[in-house]
Amino acid sequence: METITDIKGVYASGIASGIKKQGKDLAYIFVPDAIACAGVFTRNAFRGACLEHTRSCLEHGTVKAVIINSGNSNVATGEAGRANVVRTATKAARLLGVTAEQVAIASTGIIGVQLPIERLEAGLETLLDNPRKQEGTIAAEAIMTTDLTSKQTVRSATIAGQEIHIAGMAKGSGMVAPNMGTMLAYFAINAAIPQKLLQTMLAEACDCSFNMVSVDTDTSTSDMALLFATPEKEIDLSVSENYRAAQKLITEACIDLAKMIARDGEGAEKLLEVCVENAASLSDARRIALNIVGSPLVKTAVHGGDPNWGRVIMAVGKDPGVEVDPGQVDLFFGSQQVFKNGEPFGDAPRERVAKELKAEHVFIRVDLHLGSHTARAWGCDLSKRYVEINVDYN
Amino acid sequence: METITDIKGVYASGIASGIKKQGKDLAYIFVPDAIACAGVFTRNAFRGACLEHTRSCLEHGTVKAVIINSGNSNVATGEAGRANVVRTATKAARLLGVTAEQVAIASTGIIGVQLPIERLEAGLETLLDNPRKQEGTIAAEAIMTTDLTSKQTVRSATIAGQEIHIAGMAKGSGMVAPNMGTMLAYFAINAAIPQKLLQTMLAEACDCSFNMVSVDTDTSTSDMALLFATPEKEIDLSVSENYRAAQKLITEACIDLAKMIARDGEGAEKLLEVCVENAASLSDARRIALNIVGSPLVKTAVHGGDPNWGRVIMAVGKDPGVEVDPGQVDLFFGSQQVFKNGEPFGDAPRERVAKELKAEHVFIRVDLHLGSHTARAWGCDLSKRYVEINVDYN
Repeated sequence: METITDIKGVYASGIASGIKKQGKDLAYIFVPDAIACAGVFTRNAFRGACLEHTRSCLEHGTVKAVIINSGNSNVATGEAGRANVVRTATKAARLLGVTAEQVAIASTGIIGVQLPIERLEAGLETLLDNPRKQEGTIAAEAIMTTDLTSKQTVRSATIAGQEIHIAGMAKGSGMVAPNMGTMLAYFAINAAIPQKLLQTMLAEACDCSFNMVSVDTDTSTSDMALLFATPEKEIDLSVSENYRAAQKLITEACIDLAKMIARDGEGAEKLLEVCVENAASLSDARRIALNIVGSPLVKTAVHGGDPNWGRVIMAVGKDPGVEVDPGQVDLFFGSQQVFKNGEPFGDAPRERVAKELKAEHVFIRVDLHLGSHTARAWGCDLSKRYVEINVDYN
Repeated sequence: METITDIKGVYASGIASGIKKQGKDLAYIFVPDAIACAGVFTRNAFRGACLEHTRSCLEHGTVKAVIINSGNSNVATGEAGRANVVRTATKAARLLGVTAEQVAIASTGIIGVQLPIERLEAGLETLLDNPRKQEGTIAAEAIMTTDLTSKQTVRSATIAGQEIHIAGMAKGSGMVAPNMGTMLAYFAINAAIPQKLLQTMLAEACDCSFNMVSVDTDTSTSDMALLFATPEKEIDLSVSENYRAAQKLITEACIDLAKMIARDGEGAEKLLEVCVENAASLSDARRIALNIVGSPLVKTAVHGGDPNWGRVIMAVGKDPGVEVDPGQVDLFFGSQQVFKNGEPFGDAPRERVAKELKAEHVFIRVDLHLGSHTARAWGCDLSKRYVEINVDYN
């Protein structure tokens, strides 16, 4: 299994419709027999009109399909923007043989510019000419914006004697921060999980994955994760062992894509993984982990391989709202301890830290010795290329 | 008047003591007849040992002097670091003829490296050979780290018929964010303001100035602002008109230096000023203003002159904890409105926005139409030079 359309009953593809100057920019995922679809959305006040539509669809029945365009986010576009969402959903519904309330809509790209709706509508005619294509990889390419690589994952587990598979795709490279930490992610799981439970499980998985990744601390107006459940396998989730196994599967798939997003952060050359252990609360653990991966000074030090671990200490303490006892903090770069009980540790750890920072995957661990809560966050280094990419996005 | 030593009874100078590889790195300010000294400090949990000493001094009597070194922050240095603060204060006190509890200590520079205390002590002998020098400008140079320019201000006002002057200096260029938004700032005012009142006034001034500036959202472990009051002029601050005039004078001096710090942000080419109007609360106004000046995507757009105003819209909405009604928001770049009542405004504002972004001082104004609270924040653009400066700080 490689892609979302390897899940039985899941169809997807993508085309170039001319919304972007070049490249694929329009995709669909269609799950005609979906028995449930769960969604998690950005908390930015300027949510795109498509998110309001999609949220409403999820509340009123089972979503069967999603239409995704890249190149234009249809955000901050007012009444005309809302009308364009309705036109898109109506047209796609007719071509798919479902209702407009069964078609989720997602848009990603520049903010504040009206969608070229005629081109999008013409594109839908071509895209949905055959809506049962098994081209998940092409769909994963069509949802990219500044991403350098398409992002897909497949995870499998045997739960109650049955082979359960989850497959997903995501895009996200800049304007990536909680809540939530990606722009778009779509999954399908071949287990008949009912709507309410599916929603709880996706939300939990997002909290440990997309909500724990930061490229630039900026929260997109277009973030969306959807998870379709197909009727293929019945599993009894009232058995807690089954529930935990299914939750683990969904969470792992989300973490896979979250890490790919961090690694493909705009201009990034390294994946930065931060683990904060033994915090007084889960919220403290998460905030500190995110403060470290989000700190421009930590990110530039990681980029340059500069063993300036004091910047991590700064980031651990920078939020006055979290509980930290400086005299109890331990700090590690990889396996190298550099700080112990409020004092620098060892003789010349800077050289060994510099070596840890040369790796493509940099791992920083903080032990607060205050409680029992742990969180993990993912980010990337900050390079001149990030600035280049973003000084002239148009 | 140009510098802090133009205030009667205020002495200062600086020298190169060898803490930095090159350049001046050790300064003093001495106000032997100070009748009060107020201080505001970083809220980072990893405060330098010198901050604990200085805070304790302020609580136990009137501080008469401050010794400032650049090149090493003496933070995260444990017991040895604390002992070095005591040695510095004791030595300086002897040379100045005061007690160690009357000598504030400040250190700024790399974190996690022990101070070269012998060099610092030898430097104090030279620096304080004559502790009544009127070389404020040299002191302002000696407290710089990555700053490209020294930062000084003088403000004057006639209050109750008397000429009141405040003069100050600051350093700060990176690791600049609330609380508080600078690393070091020192002021003297020639008005006999009692300790408690002086503390209240300085805290209020910092909230509108140093706490509203962000270069990189990273909060230093060494931030400190001190304000000395000299006995020269008596003003009756129980008269509310006098109080307001004195508060305004102190706030304006702090804002002067805050703007200089933002303009001299590491790698910055532009000053970014953001005004958020008519928020539901002062806290909302401040958070939104800081989210805009702190956004890497806004900062890169300002750097590149990219009229991508949607990024400001994103930043206005990104914090789920603040009240924003997207349908009521107005957005202006300089005098050019680009967004009105939740819709893009006008035909082709992108060209006009691009023109506004060409200026050295970029002004963004957001009207939330929700309440009556206004806040102003200052920041700078994000350039490749920022990354260059920070990938290899050592």
